[in-house]
Amino acid sequence: MASFEIPTTTSFRPPAVSDVDVRGFWGNRIDAVADRTAMILYDRCVAAGMLDQIDPDRPVPQIRMPFHTRSDGTPDTVNVQMFWDSDVAKVIETAAYALYRKPNPELEAKIDAIIDMFHKLQQPDGYVNSWFIRMQPGQRWKNLRDCHELYCAGHLMEAAVAYFHATGKRKLLDVMCRYADHIDRTFGPRPGQKPGYCGHEEVELALVRLGRTTGEQRYLDLARFFVDQRGQQPHYFDVEAAARGADPKQFRHRTYEYNQSHLPVRQQKKVTGHAVRAMYLYSGMADVATEFGDDSLTEALKILWEDLTGKQMYVTGGIGPAASNEGFTDYYDLPNESAYAETCAAVGLTMWASRMLGRGPDRRYADIMEQALYNGALSGLSTDGATFFYDNPLESRGSHHRWTWHRCPCCPPNIARTVAAIGSYMYGVAAGQVAVHLYGDSTARLAVSGARLTLTQRTDYPWDGRIAITVDLDTPAAFRLALRVPGWCRRPTLVIDGDTVDAAAVEEEGYLRIDRLWRGGESILLDLPMDVRAVRANPKVKADLGRVALMRGPLVYCAEEADNGAGLNGVILVDGVERGRVAPLDQLGGAIAVEVDAKRERWSDWDGKLYDTAKPVLEPARARLVPYHLWDNRTPGEMLVWMRAQE
Amino acid sequence: MASFEIPTTTSFRPPAVSDVDVRGFWGNRIDAVADRTAMILYDRCVAAGMLDQIDPDRPVPQIRMPFHTRSDGTPDTVNVQMFWDSDVAKVIETAAYALYRKPNPELEAKIDAIIDMFHKLQQPDGYVNSWFIRMQPGQRWKNLRDCHELYCAGHLMEAAVAYFHATGKRKLLDVMCRYADHIDRTFGPRPGQKPGYCGHEEVELALVRLGRTTGEQRYLDLARFFVDQRGQQPHYFDVEAAARGADPKQFRHRTYEYNQSHLPVRQQKKVTGHAVRAMYLYSGMADVATEFGDDSLTEALKILWEDLTGKQMYVTGGIGPAASNEGFTDYYDLPNESAYAETCAAVGLTMWASRMLGRGPDRRYADIMEQALYNGALSGLSTDGATFFYDNPLESRGSHHRWTWHRCPCCPPNIARTVAAIGSYMYGVAAGQVAVHLYGDSTARLAVSGARLTLTQRTDYPWDGRIAITVDLDTPAAFRLALRVPGWCRRPTLVIDGDTVDAAAVEEEGYLRIDRLWRGGESILLDLPMDVRAVRANPKVKADLGRVALMRGPLVYCAEEADNGAGLNGVILVDGVERGRVAPLDQLGGAIAVEVDAKRERWSDWDGKLYDTAKPVLEPARARLVPYHLWDNRTPGEMLVWMRAQE
Repeated sequence: MASFEIPTTTSFRPPAVSDVDVRGFWGNRIDAVADRTAMILYDRCVAAGMLDQIDPDRPVPQIRMPFHTRSDGTPDTVNVQMFWDSDVAKVIETAAYALYRKPNPELEAKIDAIIDMFHKLQQPDGYVNSWFIRMQPGQRWKNLRDCHELYCAGHLMEAAVAYFHATGKRKLLDVMCRYADHIDRTFGPRPGQKPGYCGHEEVELALVRLGRTTGEQRYLDLARFFVDQRGQQPHYFDVEAAARGADPKQFRHRTYEYNQSHLPVRQQKKVTGHAVRAMYLYSGMADVATEFGDDSLTEALKILWEDLTGKQMYVTGGIGPAASNEGFTDYYDLPNESAYAETCAAVGLTMWASRMLGRGPDRRYADIMEQALYNGALSGLSTDGATFFYDNPLESRGSHHRWTWHRCPCCPPNIARTVAAIGSYMYGVAAGQVAVHLYGDSTARLAVSGARLTLTQRTDYPWDGRIAITVDLDTPAAFRLALRVPGWCRRPTLVIDGDTVDAAAVEEEGYLRIDRLWRGGESILLDLPMDVRAVRANPKVKADLGRVALMRGPLVYCAEEADNGAGLNGVILVDGVERGRVAPLDQLGGAIAVEVDAKRERWSDWDGKLYDTAKPVLEPARARLVPYHLWDNRTPGEMLVWMRAQE
Repeated sequence: MASFEIPTTTSFRPPAVSDVDVRGFWGNRIDAVADRTAMILYDRCVAAGMLDQIDPDRPVPQIRMPFHTRSDGTPDTVNVQMFWDSDVAKVIETAAYALYRKPNPELEAKIDAIIDMFHKLQQPDGYVNSWFIRMQPGQRWKNLRDCHELYCAGHLMEAAVAYFHATGKRKLLDVMCRYADHIDRTFGPRPGQKPGYCGHEEVELALVRLGRTTGEQRYLDLARFFVDQRGQQPHYFDVEAAARGADPKQFRHRTYEYNQSHLPVRQQKKVTGHAVRAMYLYSGMADVATEFGDDSLTEALKILWEDLTGKQMYVTGGIGPAASNEGFTDYYDLPNESAYAETCAAVGLTMWASRMLGRGPDRRYADIMEQALYNGALSGLSTDGATFFYDNPLESRGSHHRWTWHRCPCCPPNIARTVAAIGSYMYGVAAGQVAVHLYGDSTARLAVSGARLTLTQRTDYPWDGRIAITVDLDTPAAFRLALRVPGWCRRPTLVIDGDTVDAAAVEEEGYLRIDRLWRGGESILLDLPMDVRAVRANPKVKADLGRVALMRGPLVYCAEEADNGAGLNGVILVDGVERGRVAPLDQLGGAIAVEVDAKRERWSDWDGKLYDTAKPVLEPARARLVPYHLWDNRTPGEMLVWMRAQE
C-alpha cells in the first residue's frame, strides 16, 4: 500500500441524499417511506388543517387547538399550531427524498402547491411564518423564547435545500433565501438589530445547510452569531419578556437550562433541558465548528458528548427520560417503562453525532450515531411506514403502541425524513479523504481529489457483518479511504484485492485508514463478525441492576410477548448468550432473531397475597429476542429490553 | 381443659392506656416519649405559634404560613394553620399518656394551660376551633371538604378522653362534650341540619371513643350518621361549594376518591386517595360496625382490607406511595426509594387493624397491625424520641433523615401518641373473652366475666419469641383467653401449668383459644420461635423483582451503609438466610442484628462508560442487617430493605 501525504484539513461534509442509492435493509425502509409514509404525512397535515393555516388564499381559520393550559386552567403561551410550519416543512423534506427515490407526480404536485402557498405567504420584506402572518399578526419576533419562530424558519430552510436537491426546483429555496436574508437583517450585533436567538434551536444547523448549498457565507456567519449569542448577558429572553410587559420569571419551565441558554454555549458542561432542543443546538454548534474550524466549540461539544453518552443515554440511543420537560433529569436516571426517549430526540442525537464527524472520522461518534439510528430512532416508525412512536420506552406492559398521528406531530416526519436521508449519514468527504461511517447495501457517487468516485457496498448489514466494497473512479486519484470498525467488533478482517491487511496496524480512532493511489476497480472485503453480546449498565443506573440487554452488531434486542408469552420479567437469562441461536424470523421480514437459554420463574399461586416466603421454581426455558426497532409490529403485548440475568 | 359456653357477642373493646403497664421494648420507647418527646412537641408547638392562635387572651396573630399555592402562584383553599388545633390535640394526647407513665408537674401545668385556652375559646353555643373563631371568623362549616374543621374536633375529643383517663381531670372532656353536642345539633338528617361530613375523616372514630368513655349514645349515633352519609347524592361537597359561590369542579384533587367520598362507603371496593384519610375513615367504620354490630360495614371493610393489604401495602406496613396526593396510586405500584409511606398513614393502618379486631380476634388483622406498628410507624420516631420521619422510604441513597419538625406537623405527635398508647393495642376485651393481640413485657388490669384479671407478660419480645404469661384473678372466672400466633410462626408451643397443649387443636383464625374456668395463678408458656426469613414480593411489584426482604418475628430488616459500606445494591443475598447469625448490636441498644452470607459485585472501572459487556466479579461477603425501624440512628448513609437475591 503506497504511503502518501494526506491533506491536514479535516472538514468533512456529508453527501447529498441524492448522491447515494441505498438498497438492502435501509432501501426497504426508504421504499416504505416513499410508497406510504410521505403521502400519509401529507394527508394528515391536511386533515389537521395545517394547509388552511398556511394558504393565504383561504379564510383565516379559527384557532383549533387549545393553548397549553396551566394546572389552574389558564392558557399558557404556546399553541402547537405555532410550529405547524415546521411540521409541514419536514413533510416537504420527506417528500423530497421520496421523489428522489421514486417519481410520484401526484405527491410532487401536492408539494408544489404547498410551496406556492409559502411563496404567496411571504411578506414583501421576506418574512414567512403562517402563525404570525395569519393567526397572530403583529406579534412577530416578540417571544423568541416560546414561539418557535426561527425554529420554523430552520425547518423550512432544510426542506428547501432537500427539495432543490431532489427536484432541481428552486422556488422554495429562493423563498427561504429571501427569508434568511430578512432574518440576517433582523438579527445581529449591530444597532437596530435584535441580539436574540430561538428558544427552540434548529435554525443554526439549517443556516449551515443553506449556506453550504448556496455558497452564501452570510448564512454561515448568522449561524455562528446565533450560537455565540446564546446565553450571553443581559439575557435576551429576560429583555424581550420585559419589552412585552411580561415577568421574565413567569416561565413555565422555570430555568433557561430548559432551552440551553442558561450559560454561553462554550461554558456549558452538562446536557440539560429539552432533549430535542439540546441535540439541535449541539448539531448547529458542530456544524459551525466544522465550517469555521472552531476548536473551542469542538472542545465544549466533547465535554457535552461525554456527559450525555456517559451518564444520560439509554442503551437504545434514546435520550431524555422525562415527559415533564421532554428531556433530561439527573445522571443515571434512566427508568425503562416510563422512558420518554422521544423519537425526535434520538433523531437529534443521530444528527449531532453525524456532525461531530465533521471534524474527522472518530468511532466515538459514529458508534453512537449507529446505535441511536438503528434503535431509539428507527423504532419510531412501523415497518409498513404507517404508524409512529412518539416516546420509546424500553419496557412495556402491553399498552404502548404506535400512533397514526400525534397532537404534537413532530416525530412522524422527523423519523421519516431521517430514514429517507440515510445515505447522507453513511459517508463523510473532505479534501483527499472519504470516510465510510455506516455500512449498508448501496452505491455512492462522491467527488474526491479531483476524481469522481463510485463506492459500491454489497452487504446484508446489519444482519451480517460481511461487506464487499468496490471502488470505481473516472480517473486514478490518491486519497484516504477510512472504514469504520464498530466498537462492538473485536476481530475485524480486511482484504484488499485478495491481500489481507493487518487491520490493527491501520486502525486509528476506530477507522481503518487506507491511504493509496486508487486506480479504480479495487475490491475490498471487510468482515465485522457479529456475536450476540450481553451488555450491562453502569451500576449507578438503578433501573438496570441485575439485568442485561442483548445486542448483536448495532442492534439492541428485546423480548416480546408474541414470542415468549406474558410475564417477561419472570425470564432470567443465563450465561452463554453468545452461543445463542441466530436465525431469520419470517414474521418480521427475515429479521434476525436470537434465541438463548434462560430460566423462567414459576410461582405457586399468590392467591391475593403481596408478600410470601415461597421461592419461585426456576424452570429451564428458551427466550427469543427480536430487534428493538421492530417491536410492536406483531400481536400487541409486553416488551422488555433489560432482562434479568442470573448472577 | 374444661369445655364451656362462650358468649356469642363479639364486640371487643381495647383497654384504656392507663390499664396497661408496659415494660421492655415498648416500655423503653414510652419512657423516651414521656421523658423527651412530649415536652419537645409542646415546645415546638409554641415555637410554631400555635398557642398564639388558640389563646383568646392574646392578640389575633397574622396568618403566618402561606396557603398552599397553585402552580400559577395563586393561593389555594388550605393553610396548615387551619388544622393546628389537631396537632395541639395530639400533643395533649401524647402528654396525657406521658403523665400517666410518669408524673411531670411542669408538663401537666402547661397542658392545663392549653386546656384553659380551649375552655375560654369555646363559644356560647359550644363551638371550638381556633382558626374559624380567631383567624377567619364567620366562615365556620362553609367548606367541610377542605378545611379540616370536624377533623380538628375529632382530635380534640381524643385528647379529652386521654387526658381524662390519665389525670382524672374533666375540663377538656366537658368542653368537648359541649362541642360534640353542638356538632350533633348542627349535623344530621333533620330539617335545618347539615347533611355533611368532613373532608378529612377522624371525627367518626373520635365520637365512638367519646361515646364509650361518657356512655352517651348520641355520640355513637352521630359517628354512624357521618359514616352513612359519606358519598351520598346529591354530593354534599358539591352542594356546599355551590352555596359558597364556588365551582365544585375547581377541586385541586379533582375527584372525591381523594377523600373517599366518591361513593357511599358500603359501595367502595378500592382503597383510594389520601392514605391517612382512608385509614381514619375505615377505623371509624370499624368502630361503628363494632358498636352497632353492623355486618354490612364489616363486609365492606373486609373487601377494602384485602384490597389494601393484597395490592397496595409496603412490606413495612407503610402505605400511600405517592407524595402528590399523599396517598394511593395503582395496584402494585410500590417504589422503594420514592415511597411516601407517611408515618401517619402507617399509624392509621395500625388503628384500622386494631379496630377490625373489634369484631373478634383474627390474625389477618393483628398480623398487619403488628407489621405496620413495628416497621412503617415506629420508624417515624428516633430512638431518643427527638426527631421524626414524615415519609418512610424503603431505600435511601443517604440523604433521607429524620426532621426535628415539619411544616405540616401531623406525624410527630401521631407516632408519639401511638407509642405511648401501645398498651391499648395489646388487648381486646369482650363479654367472657380476653384476646392478647400483641406480646411485650407488661401487666394489664382487665375486667372479664365479673372478675378483675391481671395478666402479666414476661418476655423479651420482639427480640425473642418466648412469652411467660401469668393469670391473676380476684375471684375464679370462666372466660376464653385467646393468644395470637403470628402468621410468621410455624411451630408455636403452648404449655399451661406444665401441661403441653396441642396448639393446632385450639387454633382458630390464628389465635389459640383457651376456654376454661380460671382460678388465678395459672402460668402459661407460649413459645413463638423466630427464624430469619427471606420474604419475596408478588412478582407484579416491579420494584421488588429479584429481591428479598429479610424479616425476623414482626420486624422487617434493612441494610445500612454504617454496617456494610456504600453500594448496597451491589450486595446479593444467597440462600440460607435462616442460618444467619442473630446477635445483639451494642450500637443500637442491644437490638438484634442479623448477619447473612452474601456475594458482592466488584466491577472493573467503568471509566465514564454507561454500558459495557464486562461482568462483575462476585466476591463472597457478609451482610449485616438491622431492624428497619432503627435505621438512621447512626452514621448517615445508604439504606436498603429489598436486597438483591441470587436466583
